[in-house]
Formats: sequence, structure tokens, C-alpha cells
Amino acid sequence: MMSVANVKDNEIDIVIGALHADLTSFMNAWKPLFSRFHLIIIKDPDLKEDLKIPQGFDLDVYTKSDIDRVVGPSVSGIFSGYSCRYFGYLISRKKYIFSVDDDCLPAKDSKGFLVDAVSQHITNLATPATPFFFNTLYDPFRDGADFVRGYPFSLRSGVNCALSCGLWLNLADYDAPTQALKPGQRNSRYVDAVLTVPVRAMVPISGINIAFNREAVGPALLPALRLSGEGKLRWETVEDIWSGMCVKVVCDHLGLGVKTGLPYVWRNDGSDAIESLRKEWEGVKLMEQIVPFFQTMRLPQTATTAEDCVVEMAKLVKQQLGSVDPVFARAAEAMLEWIKLWKAVGLRSSSPAVQK
Amino acid sequence: MMSVANVKDNEIDIVIGALHADLTSFMNAWKPLFSRFHLIIIKDPDLKEDLKIPQGFDLDVYTKSDIDRVVGPSVSGIFSGYSCRYFGYLISRKKYIFSVDDDCLPAKDSKGFLVDAVSQHITNLATPATPFFFNTLYDPFRDGADFVRGYPFSLRSGVNCALSCGLWLNLADYDAPTQALKPGQRNSRYVDAVLTVPVRAMVPISGINIAFNREAVGPALLPALRLSGEGKLRWETVEDIWSGMCVKVVCDHLGLGVKTGLPYVWRNDGSDAIESLRKEWEGVKLMEQIVPFFQTMRLPQTATTAEDCVVEMAKLVKQQLGSVDPVFARAAEAMLEWIKLWKAVGLRSSSPAVQK
Repeated sequence: MMSVANVKDNEIDIVIGALHADLTSFMNAWKPLFSRFHLIIIKDPDLKEDLKIPQGFDLDVYTKSDIDRVVGPSVSGIFSGYSCRYFGYLISRKKYIFSVDDDCLPAKDSKGFLVDAVSQHITNLATPATPFFFNTLYDPFRDGADFVRGYPFSLRSGVNCALSCGLWLNLADYDAPTQALKPGQRNSRYVDAVLTVPVRAMVPISGINIAFNREAVGPALLPALRLSGEGKLRWETVEDIWSGMCVKVVCDHLGLGVKTGLPYVWRNDGSDAIESLRKEWEGVKLMEQIVPFFQTMRLPQTATTAEDCVVEMAKLVKQQLGSVDPVFARAAEAMLEWIKLWKAVGLRSSSPAVQK
Repeated sequence: MMSVANVKDNEIDIVIGALHADLTSFMNAWKPLFSRFHLIIIKDPDLKEDLKIPQGFDLDVYTKSDIDRVVGPSVSGIFSGYSCRYFGYLISRKKYIFSVDDDCLPAKDSKGFLVDAVSQHITNLATPATPFFFNTLYDPFRDGADFVRGYPFSLRSGVNCALSCGLWLNLADYDAPTQALKPGQRNSRYVDAVLTVPVRAMVPISGINIAFNREAVGPALLPALRLSGEGKLRWETVEDIWSGMCVKVVCDHLGLGVKTGLPYVWRNDGSDAIESLRKEWEGVKLMEQIVPFFQTMRLPQTATTAEDCVVEMAKLVKQQLGSVDPVFARAAEAMLEWIKLWKAVGLRSSSPAVQK
């Protein structure tokens, strides 16, 4: 296990959005890695059955009634499906959050050793990122690596890393068309690398296996873009992709870093991709608008916090995309609503965020 | 071995700059990979001893007298030391060039198989690059990989790849201060990835193990920045780093791609880094000027070829850096001189470039 300098276990919340009622095998598989940490489990408000969770964890479970109580029933709809996890981001009081989909298990590395995804994410976040110049040997702060010849010394201290995006073995995070075209394709390539995504390079950040510095960019991870036909399969959603664009722009603006690569998780096989095809094209078509919009976005210098940035972004979404598709106008509203929530819940944070 | 669609062996020149007289072990180690290809060996004009080259290769050797004959004795000084290889780039008539330092041997991958560096480079060059959006599963054109969810379909055809930068096992390409600080550090991490460096992200491109599309960007790989105390060790040079900045800017401007990652080569241990320390700081200090200069450089739309771009860059170097350090004024001159040479030698290209 790698050393995670200066980060204590109680600075980390693990947030699980429960889209499946029976979490027994999921939790048991993660037990060696999760048992030291506090867990926040949010039950998808649309899920009817009671959750099944094994003993032996330090955890709090939040259901629809908890969500309604904290944010009010008129707002709670933003937390359905995969977006339920954002409620966990909202009520956590910890510096770091790790979140993983409930259909993923711990992966093994190319030598067969169990991957400690929590430690790897925290190492990614606790060591500097290098967005202003590309290092060809990947993360220079990993053991055995360094800055290559030609890397300016003035940039070698790097910047704070705010977001760490992990990857997936077995079933990779493809969209439904790709999955339907190559139903047998599985990812077996373990790439032993972490790298900083360069400043102003846009990246499709998957929410499947992700960690972030909540204090730095928490408000920028938000439930905003909901497809009209959104379902309960990852490839039927783009909420995390939208959220990822937001947080990347915020990081670029605030001088923070985004890393991608390790750690991997093992992603179990999903359902029939062909059934999802009709729904997915909505998200695929929207990406053609979303990517150039975020690529050219510039935030005003007056925006100095993640909250400021999201408010400014919401204005731009409304102005530039609001008339393109109603889904964008709703996203802009949701972003503003989210920042109000974030501030309101934050004000209550001297006591525990939610009285259970 | 991977398939390299539509590239014939006779479209490739392998260019070796000979800084060491005895190439026997080098050539024999590479024989399984090199014997199908035409080789161009340029003897460092400063090297006194005769070259020792084993039999069994299709090759042409060029020495100081050949260089003098082609470019004239007043210009031939630009081809000393590591820069001798650029003479090979100049006289080649092939579409693709692979060049590797003569202290490198073929590497083995993490499973112990010999790495076919030539095929991997050509695959990198012959498949599209994706500079306009980052793919978290690295090169989507590799077997078993694809574009991840959220990647815009309109960007999935990619662009032509013009440059492929390989990496190094054992002795990595660090600068002398890093090498002196960590004399025992060796790179043993085999990262099984190729990725496109995003547009406008600057990268320190090493010339140790490199391939490129000569037709597309050949004129932008050039001998221009020569340190006053430049020696015969890689860490005493930045000529390739400068050249790499030039070619990255050209690629960004012309809509071409740059890839980095595989293939690795095995780099033999070098000399005493501490002895080089005094010299290297010159290059290290210059990088602090070079990087922001290239990061902010914008070329005019009228520059539509690599030659045009280099001429425009040379003007900017002279204007913006010429008064900072005489080394930059000389680099600007060398860039203009290089384009003249490139055009003149190109005009003679209906017949073989050099009558031996």
C-alpha cells in the first residue's frame, strides 16, 4: 500500500449511490478497503425495496425521506437515479470524497494484487498536479518517476489536485452505441499510470470511480443535466459528463489540477446495450453542443471560488445553450439551485449536517 | 507484431546519429527489427575514429565530407553532435522516419517480449490522433480500446498523426540535476499506453526515440538551439526539446496530432551526471524562457505548410527572444537557414538526394 502523507482516515467520506437494493456482495468485496472509513450511502429515491447492507461498516444511510427533509420535496427530484450520490456530496463535511458505482468491485493490478482504490485516489489528490506542462513519464510524483529533461523547474512544484478520475477493467465506460456495436468488448489493459489532464484540455469525466477535494471543488460536482429519457444504466446518462466539464473548467480557472488513470475498479457486466440505444442518442447528440461550449468558456476573474464559478457557468449555459434545447435551460436552473443548497446546507455545518 | 495498415517498408527510413564509433553491439541488438528497412547513418562530424558497423543491413553512411558537399562547409557546423541526425532527416526521401540514439537497445515489454519499436511508431503515425478532446482510455485506435462515453462522435475520426514520441526503460531522459540528485534511479515502469498530447499543451519531446511523418512536418524537426557548452551527452543538450516545441506548435497550427507513450527503448547507463551539472544549468535556465514563449505563440493563418510555420516562428524567436540571450538569435538564424536547406535539397529530389 502506498503512503498517503498527511491525510487522516477521518478526512475521507466514501459516498455510494445505491441503485441496487442488495448491496451485500458489493459491500463484502470492498470491506478490506472500506472498513477504516466512514460511508455515506444514498438510496436512489426511485428504488422501492429496502436496502440490504451487511454489518461491519461505519455508515449512514439516507433515503428519500431524509432527502426531502434536508432539501424539501420540491427540490429532491434532482437526486433520483445516479444523481442520488450528489446528496452525499452535499451533506458530507469531509475534505475528500471517494465515490464508486454499486456495480463495481475492487480490481486487481497486472501482478494480481488487489488495487487499493481509496489510497490511490487520495495519493492522487494529496500530491501536486501539473496541468501547465506535460510530463512524458506521467505523474512525476509517483515513486520511481520524476520530471523529464526540459521540464521547467519553475513549474515543478505543481498545483493542488482537486479531482482524481479512476478507470475500469472488464466493462469499460462506453456509450450504448459503442457497447451495442462491440457487445463482447472488455477492457483488459491495465495501464500503470496517473497523469494530469493539461489545462484547457476537455475530458469526459466518468462518475463511476471518482474522488475529489470537496473543500476545493465540491460545489462544482452537481446534478444538473438530466436526459428526458434517462434510465438506471450508466450509458443512459450524461449527468456525470456534464458535471465533469463543469469541474474541469472550474479547476482550470482556479489553477487546480485534474488527474486521470489509476486506480482501476472492476466493472461488472451490465444489461442489454441494444435496449438502451434509443435513449442514448439523446445524450450523444447533446455532447456535440456541450463540448464546444465548455471548450470555449471563459469565466470572469471575479469568480474566485467554486461556488462563484458555478453561478457564472449557469448564466452562460442559460444565455448560450438555453434556446438550443430545454434540457440546457433546466440544467442552468439546477446549477443555481444547487449552489443555493450547497450554501444553505453548509451554514448548518457547525452541527452534523443531517440530524438522523 | 501489430499490423501496420497500408505502410510499406520502403516508406520508412531509420536514421541513426552515430556519436559512438563502434556500432557493433547496437546494430546487432536492433538487427531483428532493422533488417527490413533502409538505414541512414550519420557520423557525428566531431567523431575522429572510423565507424564499425556489422554486415547485413541496407544502409547508407554519411560523414563530414558528405555533409560538406551537400550543404557547404559554412553551414555544416549545425550538424555536430546529436544534431548530426538532422542531416539524415534532410536527405531522406521517405514518408516516415524513425530515429533512436545509439546508446539505446530494444526494450522488452512487461511480459518479457521484445518491443518492436519500429512497428509501434508506425502504427502510432498511421492511425489517427485525437488532440481536441482527451480520451481517458488513452489511444482509442489501439486494439481493445475505444472512445469512452461522452466523447463527441464528430471528433472520433481524429486527425493525422505527425509525430510519435517513445519512452525509455532503465535510464530515463532526466536532466543532469535530477540524474545527479538520484544517481541510482532507473525507470522500470512499463506503461502500456499511447496517448495524444492535447492541442495547445506543450510537452518536452525527447529526440532519443522518435518517429515522424517527414512529408507533413519534416521541416519542423530542426537543429537550431545549440548551447554554448553543449556536449556529447543527452543531458547536456536541449536541441531536441527546442525542436519538439517547434513541431508541437506546427502540429497544433496545422491540425495534426502528436502522440507519446509506447514504444519504449532500453537506455544504457550514461556517464557521470555530476560532471555535466555545470553545463546543464544553461539549458535548464533557458527552458524558463522557452516554455512560456512557445505556450503563447500563435502563427498567422497564412502559414499553411511546415516550412511557412518555421519561417514565421523564426521571426517571432528573433523579435521576442533575440535580445534575451544570443543563443536565441542564433537559433532564429539557424531556423531560417534550415528552411533554405530543406527547400534546396528537396529540389534535387527527383534524383537520389546525395550522389555517393
